[in-house]
Amino acid sequence: MLPDNEAQGRLGALGSPSLHEHKRDAQHGCAGARANHWMEQAIATARAGIAAGQSPFGAVIVAQGLVIAASHNQVWATLDPTAHAEISAIRLAAAERQTIDLSGCVIFSTCEPCPMCMAAIHWARLDAVVFGASIADAAAAGFNELRVPAQTLIEQGGSRVRLEGGCLAEICRGLFSEWRAAADSRAY
Amino acid sequence: MLPDNEAQGRLGALGSPSLHEHKRDAQHGCAGARANHWMEQAIATARAGIAAGQSPFGAVIVAQGLVIAASHNQVWATLDPTAHAEISAIRLAAAERQTIDLSGCVIFSTCEPCPMCMAAIHWARLDAVVFGASIADAAAAGFNELRVPAQTLIEQGGSRVRLEGGCLAEICRGLFSEWRAAADSRAY
Repeated sequence: MLPDNEAQGRLGALGSPSLHEHKRDAQHGCAGARANHWMEQAIATARAGIAAGQSPFGAVIVAQGLVIAASHNQVWATLDPTAHAEISAIRLAAAERQTIDLSGCVIFSTCEPCPMCMAAIHWARLDAVVFGASIADAAAAGFNELRVPAQTLIEQGGSRVRLEGGCLAEICRGLFSEWRAAADSRAY
Repeated sequence: MLPDNEAQGRLGALGSPSLHEHKRDAQHGCAGARANHWMEQAIATARAGIAAGQSPFGAVIVAQGLVIAASHNQVWATLDPTAHAEISAIRLAAAERQTIDLSGCVIFSTCEPCPMCMAAIHWARLDAVVFGASIADAAAAGFNELRVPAQTLIEQGGSRVRLEGGCLAEICRGLFSEWRAAADSRAY
């Protein structure tokens, strides 16, 4: 179940901005330079997945300035319909920390979490999610998305997880084109 | 990742009622005798989980009159916050069938699927869910539930998965009391 680039998940210190800092930077239209740095790792992870015939989604989990887990979507590789990038990264991070409580962590995902992944993030008690492309972008690419925005699930469900979208959104959206241009692009 | 009673998931033919038949029987206040039979297996699976120190949830997946997968909640056993009973059963069924498409299958769960599990059921394209206790019951037992009913997620998300609640509901609710009476009852 380890992603192809699992070793990437052990990369070193990248600074430790608070979500407040992310939000301040976000006024300029993205999630800030350090958030961008982590999203770039999620994008690289997604690209490794595309190269491996997987769906174009990547996620990394950051704690105290360290990336503690990174995964691309593994659905086709493992024939596990639950193996989205965020779910796989949460499993890796929980295994890494030997706990189901990922408080203090932030997940960076190339795409807005679907309700399965958003609820998993809630259960694992991550502090926040930063994402790039939207569920609507994934649906437009052919994925059988439930049309429930992550913010709606958070508000209706009463979750404390914080959410910030639009981080490197154009590049993240471009992953769908890169994937379509690849030989093994199959939506589900 | 196999549940303690994984062998139970290979039990033989139990008849193959359609969901229509379930619904007809449901007019009498439960999901019908054959549905009850399958829910009883989900309950037995949950009880095996309680005995093993796990949370009081069980699920079985039925296809063409056969139980093809059974799992209790595995969160504490595997330190995987996503290892709810339904998610674990879906992984087992997909591995059993070597496909991410579980069309034609029905999942019987002792508790209403949380948004994570309900969305996983959608992604795996199961035909239907039959459940016993409610998300509100699980929340009352101390679980950090998102307060989004499965029916709400289905309707808002535009899913085709059919849903039927209240199957052996009293017995399913009673699992929470059985779990509290056990030594290892820890909610999350």
